[in-house]
Amino acid sequence: MMTVSLSFKDFYAARKDAVDFRLRTLVPENSPYHASLFEAARYSLLSSAKRLRPLLALAVAETYGVSHLQAVNAACALELIHTYSLIHDDLPCMDDDDFRRGRPTLHKVFGESTALLAGDYLLTRAFEIIAKDPHLTSDKKVELIQILSERAGGDGMIGGQVMDLEAETAPPALSLLEIIHAKKTGCMILAAVEFGACLAGSPPDERTHLEAYAKEVGIAFQIIDDVLDETGSFEEMGKKPHSDLNNHKTTFATLLGIEEAKVRGALHLERAKAHLDNLPRDTTLLKQFADFAVNRRY
Amino acid sequence: MMTVSLSFKDFYAARKDAVDFRLRTLVPENSPYHASLFEAARYSLLSSAKRLRPLLALAVAETYGVSHLQAVNAACALELIHTYSLIHDDLPCMDDDDFRRGRPTLHKVFGESTALLAGDYLLTRAFEIIAKDPHLTSDKKVELIQILSERAGGDGMIGGQVMDLEAETAPPALSLLEIIHAKKTGCMILAAVEFGACLAGSPPDERTHLEAYAKEVGIAFQIIDDVLDETGSFEEMGKKPHSDLNNHKTTFATLLGIEEAKVRGALHLERAKAHLDNLPRDTTLLKQFADFAVNRRY
Repeated sequence: MMTVSLSFKDFYAARKDAVDFRLRTLVPENSPYHASLFEAARYSLLSSAKRLRPLLALAVAETYGVSHLQAVNAACALELIHTYSLIHDDLPCMDDDDFRRGRPTLHKVFGESTALLAGDYLLTRAFEIIAKDPHLTSDKKVELIQILSERAGGDGMIGGQVMDLEAETAPPALSLLEIIHAKKTGCMILAAVEFGACLAGSPPDERTHLEAYAKEVGIAFQIIDDVLDETGSFEEMGKKPHSDLNNHKTTFATLLGIEEAKVRGALHLERAKAHLDNLPRDTTLLKQFADFAVNRRY
Repeated sequence: MMTVSLSFKDFYAARKDAVDFRLRTLVPENSPYHASLFEAARYSLLSSAKRLRPLLALAVAETYGVSHLQAVNAACALELIHTYSLIHDDLPCMDDDDFRRGRPTLHKVFGESTALLAGDYLLTRAFEIIAKDPHLTSDKKVELIQILSERAGGDGMIGGQVMDLEAETAPPALSLLEIIHAKKTGCMILAAVEFGACLAGSPPDERTHLEAYAKEVGIAFQIIDDVLDETGSFEEMGKKPHSDLNNHKTTFATLLGIEEAKVRGALHLERAKAHLDNLPRDTTLLKQFADFAVNRRY
């Protein structure tokens, strides 16, 4: 187990460097006309982050022997979408958060209007990166854009954000909370796995198992996220703890209690890994990825 | 001239109906989980509007004999982008406008957070519509998405919005104002013409002339828009007149004066039409379109 564990560490360290490096090249450092837009986008995009979504896409691609050089641009597009969603989610008219990834939120530093436009820019740029990727055929680009626009869209992530807002006035039961998070958080984790499968050209029956894995990782991830919001520190999370409690939000932790939530999180994590046993290939990397994504440490 | 003029009227009426009809089908009427998002998007998208950008794309396609049935989905994607940009532009942290297209702005009716998310949704949905268009090859889809993401992006429309905000504190000279509007307004008019040329597969040298036409139409359009803001009524514009003056904005009208601005607008309009004479085909429709787009009446 020690060797395998080290190999995940190696994967994570090397690929995270590749993603961080590529992200720095995907948003210009400057513009002759308006420095603030790209500067703002870089402030949020290049802050210290785990890069879970792009790395998950790369891990799936790598499971099929696809080089990260082929997949890294598309993987980075996922991080741009994730970052835009955090910027807009932090705005005063949304969650009104002051800290993110250990630093003041974007609108606190650059103002609301620039934060709004930087989010719009990152969203638009994500599609541009895929459409202009020199490594991909037109068919692959179209498939990736179909996945991304659907998972990040009105029936996906944005739909989840709307439901999350509505849940503040009408506290949801457990079953509804699961749907909210399947959309708000789960859809982009699903998109990451679908990206990897698309880039690898994995067969349809294997995609079904990969998608089942992604959905279980997504729910486990969110449950543990809710637990951490109650039990974690600013240092561990890069944002203020107890924000859900302070916003009177219904979470898995408030609905189930901390201990029961932990048990449920572990259960979904085990289910995620069990789905991988249906694949006719070595899925060690993806199992370790699930452990890492859910428990946030290795 | 009378017959030709009627034929533009016929084109405009028929194709506007086709665009309005298609737009109604592109955003769902309802959702089992969150009615407000799609309802908000439809409030803005389906309000009374001239549909200049999609109709310009269709006019270019039609000039090459391409049926609107082939082009209407992609053309509608332009209107979704335009609508999202208006929604975000009207938000309190941006221009803080109360009226648009003759009705209260979206955030006045649905609240800021829903307006923000409805804008994000329309932006994302625009790319989804193109990526899932059953009438287009993958190559065409990719080319359209490259055009749209570039023109609506950080060096295009969004860049222009940032410059426009910055111009409030540092009033621009005429040359800078032209760049701001070439980006903020001009880029999406250019995208419309590029969409038509892409859908028609028009040859590169013809595209150059079409793009020159688009740029002149864009600048003429904006100059007359600034004139109308000073001289028009609420009924003519669907929003409050004098909003630029009240916001102490520098416009072509404030820099040049009303009369000189009108002369300049007419000059750019003539230049636009002159570029079309380089095309080896009947460009009557596109010339009339320019007249209509700039002068807003026929």
